[in-house]
Amino acid sequence: MIRVGIVGGTGYTGAELLRLLARHPQAELAVITSRTEAGLPVAEMFPHLRGQLDLCFTEPDRGALAECDLVFFATPNGTAMQSVPELLESGTRVIDLAADFRLTDPAVWEQWYGMPHHCPDLLAEAVYGLPEIKREAIRSARLIANPGCYPTAVTLGFLPLLEQRAVDPTWLIADAKSGVSGAGRKAETNLLMAEVGESFKAYAVSGHRHLPEITQNLETFAGMAINLTFVPHLVPMIRGIEATLYARLTDTSLDLTALYQSRYANEPFVDVLTSGSPDTRSVRGSNYCRIAVARQGNSVIVQSVIDNLVKGAAGQAVQNMNLMFGLDETLGLEALALLP
Amino acid sequence: MIRVGIVGGTGYTGAELLRLLARHPQAELAVITSRTEAGLPVAEMFPHLRGQLDLCFTEPDRGALAECDLVFFATPNGTAMQSVPELLESGTRVIDLAADFRLTDPAVWEQWYGMPHHCPDLLAEAVYGLPEIKREAIRSARLIANPGCYPTAVTLGFLPLLEQRAVDPTWLIADAKSGVSGAGRKAETNLLMAEVGESFKAYAVSGHRHLPEITQNLETFAGMAINLTFVPHLVPMIRGIEATLYARLTDTSLDLTALYQSRYANEPFVDVLTSGSPDTRSVRGSNYCRIAVARQGNSVIVQSVIDNLVKGAAGQAVQNMNLMFGLDETLGLEALALLP
Amino acid sequence: MIRVGIVGGTGYTGAELLRLLARHPQAELAVITSRTEAGLPVAEMFPHLRGQLDLCFTEPDRGALAECDLVFFATPNGTAMQSVPELLESGTRVIDLAADFRLTDPAVWEQWYGMPHHCPDLLAEAVYGLPEIKREAIRSARLIANPGCYPTAVTLGFLPLLEQRAVDPTWLIADAKSGVSGAGRKAETNLLMAEVGESFKAYAVSGHRHLPEITQNLETFAGMAINLTFVPHLVPMIRGIEATLYARLTDTSLDLTALYQSRYANEPFVDVLTSGSPDTRSVRGSNYCRIAVARQGNSVIVQSVIDNLVKGAAGQAVQNMNLMFGLDETLGLEALALLP
Amino acid sequence: MIRVGIVGGTGYTGAELLRLLARHPQAELAVITSRTEAGLPVAEMFPHLRGQLDLCFTEPDRGALAECDLVFFATPNGTAMQSVPELLESGTRVIDLAADFRLTDPAVWEQWYGMPHHCPDLLAEAVYGLPEIKREAIRSARLIANPGCYPTAVTLGFLPLLEQRAVDPTWLIADAKSGVSGAGRKAETNLLMAEVGESFKAYAVSGHRHLPEITQNLETFAGMAINLTFVPHLVPMIRGIEATLYARLTDTSLDLTALYQSRYANEPFVDVLTSGSPDTRSVRGSNYCRIAVARQGNSVIVQSVIDNLVKGAAGQAVQNMNLMFGLDETLGLEALALLP
Repeated sequence: MIRVGIVGGTGYTGAELLRLLARHPQAELAVITSRTEAGLPVAEMFPHLRGQLDLCFTEPDRGALAECDLVFFATPNGTAMQSVPELLESGTRVIDLAADFRLTDPAVWEQWYGMPHHCPDLLAEAVYGLPEIKREAIRSARLIANPGCYPTAVTLGFLPLLEQRAVDPTWLIADAKSGVSGAGRKAETNLLMAEVGESFKAYAVSGHRHLPEITQNLETFAGMAINLTFVPHLVPMIRGIEATLYARLTDTSLDLTALYQSRYANEPFVDVLTSGSPDTRSVRGSNYCRIAVARQGNSVIVQSVIDNLVKGAAGQAVQNMNLMFGLDETLGLEALALLP
Repeated sequence: MIRVGIVGGTGYTGAELLRLLARHPQAELAVITSRTEAGLPVAEMFPHLRGQLDLCFTEPDRGALAECDLVFFATPNGTAMQSVPELLESGTRVIDLAADFRLTDPAVWEQWYGMPHHCPDLLAEAVYGLPEIKREAIRSARLIANPGCYPTAVTLGFLPLLEQRAVDPTWLIADAKSGVSGAGRKAETNLLMAEVGESFKAYAVSGHRHLPEITQNLETFAGMAINLTFVPHLVPMIRGIEATLYARLTDTSLDLTALYQSRYANEPFVDVLTSGSPDTRSVRGSNYCRIAVARQGNSVIVQSVIDNLVKGAAGQAVQNMNLMFGLDETLGLEALALLP
Repeated sequence: MIRVGIVGGTGYTGAELLRLLARHPQAELAVITSRTEAGLPVAEMFPHLRGQLDLCFTEPDRGALAECDLVFFATPNGTAMQSVPELLESGTRVIDLAADFRLTDPAVWEQWYGMPHHCPDLLAEAVYGLPEIKREAIRSARLIANPGCYPTAVTLGFLPLLEQRAVDPTWLIADAKSGVSGAGRKAETNLLMAEVGESFKAYAVSGHRHLPEITQNLETFAGMAINLTFVPHLVPMIRGIEATLYARLTDTSLDLTALYQSRYANEPFVDVLTSGSPDTRSVRGSNYCRIAVARQGNSVIVQSVIDNLVKGAAGQAVQNMNLMFGLDETLGLEALALLP
Repeated sequence: MIRVGIVGGTGYTGAELLRLLARHPQAELAVITSRTEAGLPVAEMFPHLRGQLDLCFTEPDRGALAECDLVFFATPNGTAMQSVPELLESGTRVIDLAADFRLTDPAVWEQWYGMPHHCPDLLAEAVYGLPEIKREAIRSARLIANPGCYPTAVTLGFLPLLEQRAVDPTWLIADAKSGVSGAGRKAETNLLMAEVGESFKAYAVSGHRHLPEITQNLETFAGMAINLTFVPHLVPMIRGIEATLYARLTDTSLDLTALYQSRYANEPFVDVLTSGSPDTRSVRGSNYCRIAVARQGNSVIVQSVIDNLVKGAAGQAVQNMNLMFGLDETLGLEALALLP
């Protein structure tokens, strides 16, 4: 059994980790910390865990965390980096679900997240936890930077085209749409149901923090400079991301669907459709990414859907944990999507 | 492995059976019939099953069904009764998720469902599949009448009060609210999202088919004549039933929460809250019924929530299957609710 | 033109007043105050008012308000009573959309709202602004207590039965359901779309602040002691209240629909259906209350729907303003419901 | 008073026409036809019209229609063209809300709508009813082709950039999102709330019927050949379209917001934001189009929102009617958006 700790278990990412880990056959939840809710039984905050989880939230305590084999950070950006060096030294491995270790260049981090990085030397060691690209490195990693939700959907969607040099990399467009849980569990007026229900809008049109992460992915993994325009939107639903990606084909003779099927043939959690468009409900609550690819003239259109809290956060983190501890990659992630 | 067949697998109840059985460690899905979709791969209709289920829908075929250990009917009311006698004779056990075998009196069936019963002699044998009341009979049953969604929520909610003779049985009120999946997967204008989204209403106010079923339950299991007013409502959400029940206390000294906790202490799928109100999302996708009980003066108010497709249909059917085949009652039903 | 001021224009009730008054042919919006948003153009907070309203929020200023003919208070409970005496003295008339002047007994106010009343002597003068009952008194009132949203729906629903002495008044039940805008525009986690979307629950089951208001209405207007059990619920939609009311008939020979039609024959904003159930969308954005009445045995079931922000708040306030200033009661309230 | 007829008043477009015309001070609804609902009072199908509209649906009757000054066709594509020639001959003017007269080339019509055009000679006379471009021609038109919903949002969004020659016209991208009412009031399983609620997806990715209409608009009105990739998406809400448009700037020195403000300075129903992103609720139920424009490097990003049933259909039709009959263009369209 893997002895697991969670730092910051009161947001949606933390709640989803709890849901998945409570049923994981090889993980034992030992510690869940929350500065604001210390002492509260976890199941009082999250009634779906009643009868399944007897833990209480505790004050953050490095001693207790250091006794874990693995600690997940489900904290705001900039929190994990304060504690990770010490934990790694004590032999505990770490998966950070925030952005602290995703960007390899500390200057880019500081530019987009507005604070200096606390342990820039660890950025080179941290492994970007997208198993479809970094599987082997993940297995032996001490520190995983779990990918962002938009970056997961967009990177998996563009990757085969870029690896194949099939599109013009100088003008890629990602029009992404997310359910409201992606904004987190924050007491903000602009996330009230009466504000975001029955409405749709773009946001962060001049530049979203996930843009440098996606750009870094596409450039690193595809080995070329790219230029991406990225616009996120807010959908009046709770879970799910759909990214519609546009690029101009340089090779119009390709069988695009075959290209994608071949690239993801051995991936347990990427499913390439041969027709139709994937809807977000087909992955709700599951760790799948479903992709379809189509054309209009010389334009290629990729549609990529994930559950932002599962493949876009907690599910991918568990997938990474499985790889790190030599388990079957799909363990604890077998549940099918909840449809309808 | 239990060899399982499903008749009518294209509605929401059938889809939910497929979702649960595809992951059930002791069930093997052998046959799924659909007159309209014969030949279609199941995963083309239900994309969340892609990669998990290789079956195609087939024409109804009594031979193939008779080779199953168990057949679920997820068909419209009045369909199962045409085939059940023959199946039982061939040694196949049956769980009917429709209403065909729920009412013990064939005249009441005919009054509410508008057709004579095809095999009234089986009504006495059929076991009403509410494990919280009929667990022992279910274990050895050949034929299970799986309860309706509203009757499950309302019966579990009123039962402790009636068994205890704590309320006036001559004026019980059940104000029930259901998500739209309860109306089924039918091409009807009045179920379009543009019709039922962002709106709320009562329906069937003069009498809903579940009224005689609930009345029968309460009278049978509580051993007294009762008078129930039952009004269902349509909620702009997909899954979930909440029933708010009202009765007048005859014994105001009772500790109501203690009464409910005691009644359901050994039930794996009934959870009694000690404070607050249960929300339907706390059971979404799970087989739980969560109940809270409160008072205003001499009025007792019971709140009972289930997922209409799980504890209200397919999950309860799997729970019954587990009992019938000597398995752990919770097998395949361990998934926690999907929240948020 | 009526010179109008609004105190507290940043909540949903205030926004709805702005929407209605910006188009009212006889009202001129002179002052909108907000302590937190002073200086902000109103249309920056509420983009649907862009191009229609040039006002900025201002600091509360009794001088400016005293120059108005009428001031609406769309403030939290307990705020209006601090300023109303002075305003009335200056000759300005007042409509309070909060609860400050709804309860005639200051002890009941203190019990439910947790603070002593600041001007209990005004409680006798304040007119409860339900035009269907108090039309004549409203015309000449200086101070209107605009009814609560639930009390409007429930009072209009029960009134004909009680006036007619047709039901047992000792056990009335009101099971009410509201869209989330009824909870106000507050930065609270429990009102986030990810919390209340796709879910349904009861709340305040042990006693909601609108219970004494409804009880007072029913007792005063019907002239008898009554006993009411009232349970509100939260619906995953933005606007609308549906109240399903239950009572036991003492006279079962009544033509209930005719009774309601007769009672409301001359009411411009109460519509009695002769069949079917009213849905909340049929009144969305409009000032109508639609009512249907049905029976199950000796139980009478009344369904009453309103838009909680219109007939349940701002629309009724404008209706009261029209009456107070001798205008056509429906002026500025002619828009039909937005359906779908 | 304009004597008005509506052919096909049972869909959402027809219902919205009814809502607007019932309150229009210069229009008198004389005839509403529906083959399937002849004899039914309109208010029985649409309860929000109760008490406001005494008409019944009638069988289509060219005599009655020919007595109208103006007939709106809110019929499926291909229906209006059967009757329009005869109506025009009788002196009745026509606004067709379907696609019959939108495409100037009958071969393109046949390619996308699968049937030969019945009166291709009228295509040259028909005026494309987008007042922001065709105002003068609309005033004197006998026959108006009312624009499609997506074409309205996309054309108004791209127009200033193309007129200004500010972007590369060979690769324009329109990623559009629509609420479900855009799909019409059809009894189809794939429009049920249990299918489209809480989910998001693209559709018609290989080519939507509105693509040739938008291309024709942009080429005609901007006077250059263009290449557009257009992908529509389905949003789990009832009303609203948001289109996010992407193009590559050829002139990066432009003040984009000033360009849009200047272009639409005199337009009563186009509102250009100076900051932030427009949300669809800011136009819900109103005839506004709200637009914002932003940049990421050399990419320009335009966001355009409308209510698909108002500015995208019935509202624009009324705007056209006002122009045709010499009325104030905004008459009957003054209502503000319903927010929240």
